[in-house]
Amino acid sequence: MNTYKSPGDCLERLRFLDRERIHLCRVAALLQWDEETFLPAGGVEERAEQRAVLEGLAHEKLVCAETGELLDKLRDHASLSGTVSDLQNGAGGFPVADFLRVLRRDYEKAVKIPVDFVRECAKAEALSQAAWIEARKHNDFAAFAPHLEKMIDYAKKKAEFWGWDKNHLYDGLLDFYEPSFGVKEIAAVFSPLRERLQQLLKKIAARPKPVDAFLHQNFDISKQEAFCREVLAGLGFDSKRGRLDVSAHPFTTPLGNNDVRITTRYAPSDPLSGLFSVIHESGHAFYELGVDSALRYSSLADGTSMGIHESQSRLWENVIGRSRAFWKPWFPRFKECFSKEFGETDFENFYRAVNIIAPGPIRVDADELSYSLHIVLRFELEEMLFSGQLSLNELPGAWNTKMKDYLGVECADDAEGVLQDVHWSMGAFGYFPSYALGNLYGLQFWDSLQGALGDVDGFLEQREYGPIHSWLRENIHRKGRSVEPAVLIKEVTGRSLSADSFFRYIEQKYMELYAF
Amino acid sequence: MNTYKSPGDCLERLRFLDRERIHLCRVAALLQWDEETFLPAGGVEERAEQRAVLEGLAHEKLVCAETGELLDKLRDHASLSGTVSDLQNGAGGFPVADFLRVLRRDYEKAVKIPVDFVRECAKAEALSQAAWIEARKHNDFAAFAPHLEKMIDYAKKKAEFWGWDKNHLYDGLLDFYEPSFGVKEIAAVFSPLRERLQQLLKKIAARPKPVDAFLHQNFDISKQEAFCREVLAGLGFDSKRGRLDVSAHPFTTPLGNNDVRITTRYAPSDPLSGLFSVIHESGHAFYELGVDSALRYSSLADGTSMGIHESQSRLWENVIGRSRAFWKPWFPRFKECFSKEFGETDFENFYRAVNIIAPGPIRVDADELSYSLHIVLRFELEEMLFSGQLSLNELPGAWNTKMKDYLGVECADDAEGVLQDVHWSMGAFGYFPSYALGNLYGLQFWDSLQGALGDVDGFLEQREYGPIHSWLRENIHRKGRSVEPAVLIKEVTGRSLSADSFFRYIEQKYMELYAF
Repeated sequence: MNTYKSPGDCLERLRFLDRERIHLCRVAALLQWDEETFLPAGGVEERAEQRAVLEGLAHEKLVCAETGELLDKLRDHASLSGTVSDLQNGAGGFPVADFLRVLRRDYEKAVKIPVDFVRECAKAEALSQAAWIEARKHNDFAAFAPHLEKMIDYAKKKAEFWGWDKNHLYDGLLDFYEPSFGVKEIAAVFSPLRERLQQLLKKIAARPKPVDAFLHQNFDISKQEAFCREVLAGLGFDSKRGRLDVSAHPFTTPLGNNDVRITTRYAPSDPLSGLFSVIHESGHAFYELGVDSALRYSSLADGTSMGIHESQSRLWENVIGRSRAFWKPWFPRFKECFSKEFGETDFENFYRAVNIIAPGPIRVDADELSYSLHIVLRFELEEMLFSGQLSLNELPGAWNTKMKDYLGVECADDAEGVLQDVHWSMGAFGYFPSYALGNLYGLQFWDSLQGALGDVDGFLEQREYGPIHSWLRENIHRKGRSVEPAVLIKEVTGRSLSADSFFRYIEQKYMELYAF
Repeated sequence: MNTYKSPGDCLERLRFLDRERIHLCRVAALLQWDEETFLPAGGVEERAEQRAVLEGLAHEKLVCAETGELLDKLRDHASLSGTVSDLQNGAGGFPVADFLRVLRRDYEKAVKIPVDFVRECAKAEALSQAAWIEARKHNDFAAFAPHLEKMIDYAKKKAEFWGWDKNHLYDGLLDFYEPSFGVKEIAAVFSPLRERLQQLLKKIAARPKPVDAFLHQNFDISKQEAFCREVLAGLGFDSKRGRLDVSAHPFTTPLGNNDVRITTRYAPSDPLSGLFSVIHESGHAFYELGVDSALRYSSLADGTSMGIHESQSRLWENVIGRSRAFWKPWFPRFKECFSKEFGETDFENFYRAVNIIAPGPIRVDADELSYSLHIVLRFELEEMLFSGQLSLNELPGAWNTKMKDYLGVECADDAEGVLQDVHWSMGAFGYFPSYALGNLYGLQFWDSLQGALGDVDGFLEQREYGPIHSWLRENIHRKGRSVEPAVLIKEVTGRSLSADSFFRYIEQKYMELYAF
């Protein structure tokens, strides 16, 4: 079919095909971004078809016979004139071996999925997401259930196509988001995590609750938005390379190497909800924006795993965004914006309120302790749905029961219960655990960062985020997908992933805050 | 290559290919819409590549061997089991013969253009548009000139590919936008048009000028926008099927059968500029939104020519939007929104100010008389550029000279002169004449509409736009591209296109207004 002779020719052609596919993926991402931000209601059905066409084409580009042939030729380079290793230090520092490894894995995952199935899925996902938006608005789980059932079926079929045994389909999905993590590995981390967090929650429940009534007044949305934009700019988010908009569920999407868009949502009664979503998503965006430009327009220009991605967003949201040092310079400004609402509130009260441990039904608004319990709940329910232990009509009840057991929270309705997250409506099963893994990765990175930078609090107090960005970019972001997560964590921190840093951070912070 | 036996099979496959291509075209349109509304500056370069990939793919879909084979088989249907005529009254009333005719023409136009050229063009266009936006902002024709030169070269090459003789390349471009109109045909209409309009302008210049100082104050942009949205909704624009946003140059783009987006721009010192752009673009949008849903997702789901498209936008903007009857109910509301600015202005003064004949440099802000002179100027300059009578560095000067000759206007700088329009930056040469043709088509339709509906002013005075929409939809919109413009005008009005209706309308309206 093709007549490329030298490894150089093969590689050039492979990079061309990859580049076209990456463009199609970015365009598909624009279709989705637009659907969640600006698409008129009447456009939903046609948009689903458009997405199906685009995602189908991107899939075809990846799985085409030529890609397979080129990958094979480059593996068996002995038979070609010249070798791939000649190309290792190619122009612009493009890491050829990593590119071939990552592309081969993507290719092998994708080639097993029939094109028609990809298109069918993409279309169903778009309809399902639209149905979820409506169902959530009208608190109508029944209206969403048929879509959810389809999404589960599609996810199961996908894992089957990848070659997973009928009894381990959920493992296949978990592995997709975080390579080499399955039900067993995650349960081994999550069971003790759940126990230790529940113990901590009990200790905290016995302590006096900080006052946070001043945070629950009517905060003007446009003033909230202005403050969020100020913080975002202060953090170093370049408005020439990205945007902030509003959507039902906050998300980040890279539409280009220099066009990474984030969204948030504002609640009048909670000025921190929208703000922390902005800070969270900016962490994702900094990761995408920090990928080395040598990798752009290629399969390597992305985060290396969902867990590593979440480590970045959760570092910015929690470790930085909920710290005393961060708020020292920002609180006076926040108080200026809402002088009537904050009145005489002093800094220490505000800081305690920001870090109040108050289990509630909504994951994205959860405190640092409750958050991981929300994740454990989702992981367990997903596992039960995929193993057949739980049927769809039992799901809202099971959700509410676990919510009560783990967090002591009663859900008022399904809109703030089982319908709260976008993920399932997109068929993203197995994704949730990466949020909790992100906490672990994140704190382990943070320990190293502090070791390298010294007085990080001093920087935060001066709103000097440059050194933090530089360290994260140099050690993590710039590498994109060229380094696997398990290798990255060891390369950067000197040790394999463990929960030590996370527990030490959580215990120290909340022992101090709650004085136990 | 394919094994479709019956005309039914062939048609089904052809419609599938066509549908995929239409989806790709809509997606390419979204890329462009986003570029002009929300794209961060850093994303321009990558967006150009994305557009190139999408437009290349859409082109490939159209020119693929299979399309050609299927078209041939369906033309030579005698050799197949069953005939195309069996399909004429197919399910959903889809007009098969029109579809085959239009698709064959598009195919034959496109198959002559090499795919690589299409991609190169698309990429250059995106860069050119971005350069134009900057050049216009900084009044820097020199910065835009290299892009413009490229756009002219590409347009010439395109006409050559289509098979036009080197001496008639501009004819090829004109014909593309308005079939069977070339330099000779258009000059034959435009020369007398220019003379008659110049005569009218002279008569008007001798009459006292209406007062319009009250229209040139500082009109708050957000209040302007609110009023525009109110008018747009009042006209019957369904926000579930479209959007209104802001861009450097107003435009309309259909991103789907139920997602047609328009843009405008607001000037603080002129509350009518943004408003009339909104009304103009809504006329385009009503056309697209009125196409029969049986035609959707096919090559027939679009306006039949640029001239017919402009007839719709200019009907709404001028014939309706600048009429006494239209403003009777809207003026009191407009006055409410800007009570301080309008003060004691009475209706008759306002109506006269709305229709003031005041030649100025900007086409989109031009009065109904000057407008066509702006078009004649552009047509003549395009003709000179393509015939080699004018070089690019002479262009700004030639622009200014003609502007002075035809309209008596001095351009302050190139930003309000040769740089004012987006069209050339997109390589859309030969497009401008369709604006003036639109005036002629539009008034001829309007005569028939009035004949059918009777007291149209009565409807306008009641803000009852339903009967007008129904008539336009039934007679023009629903047909999409299934009827050619020359056939359509005869089918709807009983006669071929002439300037009679337009002249009668213009002369009556302005004789009354200026009492000569």
